[in-house]
Amino acid sequence: MTATARGRRRGSPDTRAAILAAARTRFAEAGFAGTTIRGVAGDAGVDPALVHHYFGSKDDLFVAALELPVDPRAVMAEQVVGPLDGAGERLLRALLSVWDDPSMRPALLAMVRRLVEPGGERLFREGFLPVVLAPLGEALGIDAPERRMQLVASQVIGLIMLRYVVRAPALAAMDAEALVAAYAPVLDRFLAGPL
Amino acid sequence: MTATARGRRRGSPDTRAAILAAARTRFAEAGFAGTTIRGVAGDAGVDPALVHHYFGSKDDLFVAALELPVDPRAVMAEQVVGPLDGAGERLLRALLSVWDDPSMRPALLAMVRRLVEPGGERLFREGFLPVVLAPLGEALGIDAPERRMQLVASQVIGLIMLRYVVRAPALAAMDAEALVAAYAPVLDRFLAGPL
Repeated sequence: MTATARGRRRGSPDTRAAILAAARTRFAEAGFAGTTIRGVAGDAGVDPALVHHYFGSKDDLFVAALELPVDPRAVMAEQVVGPLDGAGERLLRALLSVWDDPSMRPALLAMVRRLVEPGGERLFREGFLPVVLAPLGEALGIDAPERRMQLVASQVIGLIMLRYVVRAPALAAMDAEALVAAYAPVLDRFLAGPL
Repeated sequence: MTATARGRRRGSPDTRAAILAAARTRFAEAGFAGTTIRGVAGDAGVDPALVHHYFGSKDDLFVAALELPVDPRAVMAEQVVGPLDGAGERLLRALLSVWDDPSMRPALLAMVRRLVEPGGERLFREGFLPVVLAPLGEALGIDAPERRMQLVASQVIGLIMLRYVVRAPALAAMDAEALVAAYAPVLDRFLAGPL
């Protein structure tokens, strides 16, 4: 699905970079809902078909604009989707495998900073939640997916903030097994417990 | 304890403001541990005794520099400290009573922004965790207080980020009872459950 965005045909680096820069500006200023492929193409001075060709859908363009070292939708589809039983642990292990990789962390931290700076919260709300998080709720087949996935997000974001951004000493010192023991029951409760 | 900082004898507004400005700069640049009352006094051009007179201890000065509408230590001492049974619910209700008050929210949001911007994470780690959060763990008499209170913080910060900063639709729409039902068991687990 995202093959064109993952490197098969990247086209001119300058054109790609111009489209990405235009997309980042549009998403930041107009939000996810207010951004169109046509508008981004106009800002970058290219044909809309070229934006589709390089980046795929608007969702794909949004994820590309986050400049992550991995596509979080691919990580979740490959490592988290499956039976509801154990989903909290799979989600945590997928998260930790990416965040605890020193080569990936700078780009992830930069994304978190962009999402928490003024204006970024709109991208998070209008873009990240529906584009990245909602498909996981659908794939897991849970009831009340919007509420449950936002409860999950509230714990995941808090863990990321405290362990990786603030580096709270006790949380930063916990290994993956201790983190799974502490947080998997919480995520399982949010995914499948009483509401 | 914080009577001098809460309005009984505020002294010259200009002097107070100069001390607070110097404190904010010092805390931001040198961190909590690297900031001294003496250094702040020197930057503000006043005697250290005057800083103590206006603001009390370094902890008090730190909380004053956060410019919050309420002293979070007082809120926790009055509303959260008590038997461990029910502590999660009390913590949530205290948090919601402050955050859901429209007159308080702008100052709280400004504090969150300062704590998540570059450099702010150090103030959070060195200042907020030991000055504001650690005393609650001590007062509740829990084992492994550092780890447990940081687990609690990870959920509370995530809830604040998603409900008040990002305004994730499903979380923003939940009332206090629904939030207590969803989160109190999580906080109770972090405070007293298996580690």
